[in-house]
Amino acid sequence: TCFMIAGVVDGKPNFVILLMDDMGWGDLGVFGEPNKETPYLDKMAAEGMIFPDFYSANPLCSPSRAALLSGRLPIRNGFYTTNAHARNGKAVLNLYPQIITGGIPDSEILLPEVLKKMGYRNKLIGKWHLGHRPQYHPLKHGFDEWFGAPNCHFGPYDDIDTPNIPVYKDAEMAGRYYEEFAIDKKTGESNLTKMYLNEAQQFIKKQVGKKEPFFLYWAADATHDPLYASSNFLGMSKRGLYGDAVKELDYSVGQILQSLKDNGVDKNTVVFFSSDNGAATYAKTGGGSNGPFLCGKQTTFEGGMREPTIAWWPGVVQPGKVSHQVGSLMDLYTTFIELAGGNIPTDREVDGISLKDALLNNTVTDRPLFYYRGNELMAVRVGLYKAHLWTWTNSIKEFNAGIDFCPGEEIEGVTTHEQMNNTNQPLLFHIGRDPGEKYMIRPSLEEYKKVMPLIMEQVNQHKKNLVPGKPQLNMCDRSVMNWSPPGCEKFKCLQGPSPAPYKCSWPH
Amino acid sequence: TCFMIAGVVDGKPNFVILLMDDMGWGDLGVFGEPNKETPYLDKMAAEGMIFPDFYSANPLCSPSRAALLSGRLPIRNGFYTTNAHARNGKAVLNLYPQIITGGIPDSEILLPEVLKKMGYRNKLIGKWHLGHRPQYHPLKHGFDEWFGAPNCHFGPYDDIDTPNIPVYKDAEMAGRYYEEFAIDKKTGESNLTKMYLNEAQQFIKKQVGKKEPFFLYWAADATHDPLYASSNFLGMSKRGLYGDAVKELDYSVGQILQSLKDNGVDKNTVVFFSSDNGAATYAKTGGGSNGPFLCGKQTTFEGGMREPTIAWWPGVVQPGKVSHQVGSLMDLYTTFIELAGGNIPTDREVDGISLKDALLNNTVTDRPLFYYRGNELMAVRVGLYKAHLWTWTNSIKEFNAGIDFCPGEEIEGVTTHEQMNNTNQPLLFHIGRDPGEKYMIRPSLEEYKKVMPLIMEQVNQHKKNLVPGKPQLNMCDRSVMNWSPPGCEKFKCLQGPSPAPYKCSWPH
Ligand SMILES: [Ca+2]
Ligand SMILES: [Ca+2]
Repeated sequence: TCFMIAGVVDGKPNFVILLMDDMGWGDLGVFGEPNKETPYLDKMAAEGMIFPDFYSANPLCSPSRAALLSGRLPIRNGFYTTNAHARNGKAVLNLYPQIITGGIPDSEILLPEVLKKMGYRNKLIGKWHLGHRPQYHPLKHGFDEWFGAPNCHFGPYDDIDTPNIPVYKDAEMAGRYYEEFAIDKKTGESNLTKMYLNEAQQFIKKQVGKKEPFFLYWAADATHDPLYASSNFLGMSKRGLYGDAVKELDYSVGQILQSLKDNGVDKNTVVFFSSDNGAATYAKTGGGSNGPFLCGKQTTFEGGMREPTIAWWPGVVQPGKVSHQVGSLMDLYTTFIELAGGNIPTDREVDGISLKDALLNNTVTDRPLFYYRGNELMAVRVGLYKAHLWTWTNSIKEFNAGIDFCPGEEIEGVTTHEQMNNTNQPLLFHIGRDPGEKYMIRPSLEEYKKVMPLIMEQVNQHKKNLVPGKPQLNMCDRSVMNWSPPGCEKFKCLQGPSPAPYKCSWPH
Repeated sequence: TCFMIAGVVDGKPNFVILLMDDMGWGDLGVFGEPNKETPYLDKMAAEGMIFPDFYSANPLCSPSRAALLSGRLPIRNGFYTTNAHARNGKAVLNLYPQIITGGIPDSEILLPEVLKKMGYRNKLIGKWHLGHRPQYHPLKHGFDEWFGAPNCHFGPYDDIDTPNIPVYKDAEMAGRYYEEFAIDKKTGESNLTKMYLNEAQQFIKKQVGKKEPFFLYWAADATHDPLYASSNFLGMSKRGLYGDAVKELDYSVGQILQSLKDNGVDKNTVVFFSSDNGAATYAKTGGGSNGPFLCGKQTTFEGGMREPTIAWWPGVVQPGKVSHQVGSLMDLYTTFIELAGGNIPTDREVDGISLKDALLNNTVTDRPLFYYRGNELMAVRVGLYKAHLWTWTNSIKEFNAGIDFCPGEEIEGVTTHEQMNNTNQPLLFHIGRDPGEKYMIRPSLEEYKKVMPLIMEQVNQHKKNLVPGKPQLNMCDRSVMNWSPPGCEKFKCLQGPSPAPYKCSWPH
């Protein structure tokens, strides 16, 4: 197309990804949250383009984020396990992923690596989750700056069996959660989101001053268990602490967009807001909302992977638009590289497609969408149809112990507690008229007979070309935990055990 | 307050109620429908004020509409039965309500009666549902004009056991459904919404020409079973025929608002969009969506009674606002009478409150909300808390026969299939952090002990003052069906049976 992109300096727009953690599709006012507590995000939507059919590449934090930055499905980039079938990868006791030995392979070409070669300065603020051992750190994989942590903010730990998670300032530890970086689990108070906002504002200002294009990956995690908010926001939501966290993130997004305006770069900065996976419905009122969608985090139902997504690029993306493009977080890889004028790697499969035409002309490109859980292709979406090749929520043993991935929801043969292999006769749904995946289209119907072969063609094509990456989530070792991160000498360095690798076990 | 209402001629603004039939809270893009197919309603919301906490007075068409026009709960105005406990009132075989002998009592003072005395001209377009015998017709109860039908558009009937429903033009029949007014049940095609739109446009134009204030009650029913849309809209939705109907209604609402603008009366016309009850979830993909709310039509869970509500009054109501007022369709009675400068009847309880301050100043007034089913107070909302005094969905017998009021949803002790009397220990929910009514607040908790007495105080107050009206839905008689409506001689008059009244039976 000969569409002129207004305001872009040197053809190199800045990029900002505002990635939420475990926030659900239904958590934003603009996506139907009934308490309407996200005025800044609703305004972002009114000024930008919403993508109601946008997905993560996996229903779990770590593989989702690896896919986002590599543009490739976890089955390709290695963020899965072969220790057990269709397991998501959350180990027991909240130790995960401190004991995981794997991480993002050097062979993956991450988005910041590509952008760096093109003159961008890249900063990660918040959660990394692509491996916590030194060789996997963000600064070894294309980022120039980092403020945040390699893992979730679980804790506090005892420093004996388990060290607290370090928070990094660039290559060195700047303290640890529950020590230098306080999270009060009783009140839910923490200043982390405030710090992440401040870091973002400083970075934008600095980069504009230097006239150097930038990529800001803002990965705040206040909506991930344990929930937190700063004192100004505690108790301010009608939704409890989860809502307080959302309100602070909403406010922070508003301030970051304002910062782009104040620094005069709003018209040459492409911003995407989204989340890494569906709301953690098993956390009950301590988790978010997936709106009308089934189940949540950990599952390959719509609630597990459909994400509240907004694109914002004033002067280029027309205000108040809705894109019906079936999108994926992996598409940001391809889209940003294309918008920067770079080249997508051709020596490998890249799953992300370019959303450039969707953003500029509101066009829609057909593409199948694959829903994986661990090493298994669970489901596929083609057009408005979705076929489940496999179904399961969590084991009946876990369920009986009170862990419910689909609270209040029960659909016979669908929300199963054992792994059901439906590959010979997949369960078909029309998610246009049935977004909640409640009403199976029976195999005896003409509609089924017409649609299913077209879907299976896409599945077979996908499987034929698939070269699985080396699984990164198979091995665990307590010695690789964050005992003595670089820079620990300014605080305290801990003595870990000797290496003793073993096969990880995966309940989900 | 001394707020100056701009643009109101003679202190008598026009009033328009756009009342949908069985449309759910989650059916509008602005309320979170994922296919985003309501651009006109979304624009109405952007130009007006949305009420995410707005309710019908009953989860069923007929009592809901009687409450809307009388400003009073069905238990007061008589739209309930004492033949069975907590029954909604839908008789078998889709004959209802042609065989019902009752209707709106003369003693009720309806909104159009009050407005008529103040110089308004009132028109009903669409479904009446407040009684179909001559003495209950809209023109006997304050309306000056009518185009529409007294009942639902079920059929076609055989003219022998059952006559088809008449469509009226003012006091006389203008034909019958499936005869002069076609509904093709195979294709879903019907021009009724188109006719209703045209009637509205003509009425607005005429009234503006006469400089006479008006009340237009536009009660289209394309989203009520059997669903229909005109040929331009058939197959246009991603949601099937239900979505086609929504798209045509959305378009029609847009045209009506445009008509107000074109005729220069948008700034002195108060418009409310809402629905008479929750989406009929038991119709599966043939029904609408209640978004994140539990169950639907027929039930007193949030899905049964929370309605997608938008107020629009350019120049007075500020654009893009959200009101957190707990509102009811009954409030339109009080609000409109107050805005017209009239007096609310003082010789009786009126349940509606005035929303004037909510509209003008976005203030919120505390008020309890009562959820009735037939003759029983099932639940009450006070602030963000909701207590269920009784729970049930539908009978296990019906459920086992495939009629499910809560498809895919099952909450132990809540979505019960027998009538559960919880009045000694009501089931408490916080619908701010738990809009889906999934997570009971246990009676052992401090929160329960603190909140429950305050709620029960409201319940006791309400019950103490309650004077139930004479039940209108007790008696049935096949002789009262629409055999020979006024004006039938221009078409055909049918011979009904002799009077034979009997007690109606109510499955739900
Ligand atoms: Ca996550
Ligand atoms: Ca209705």
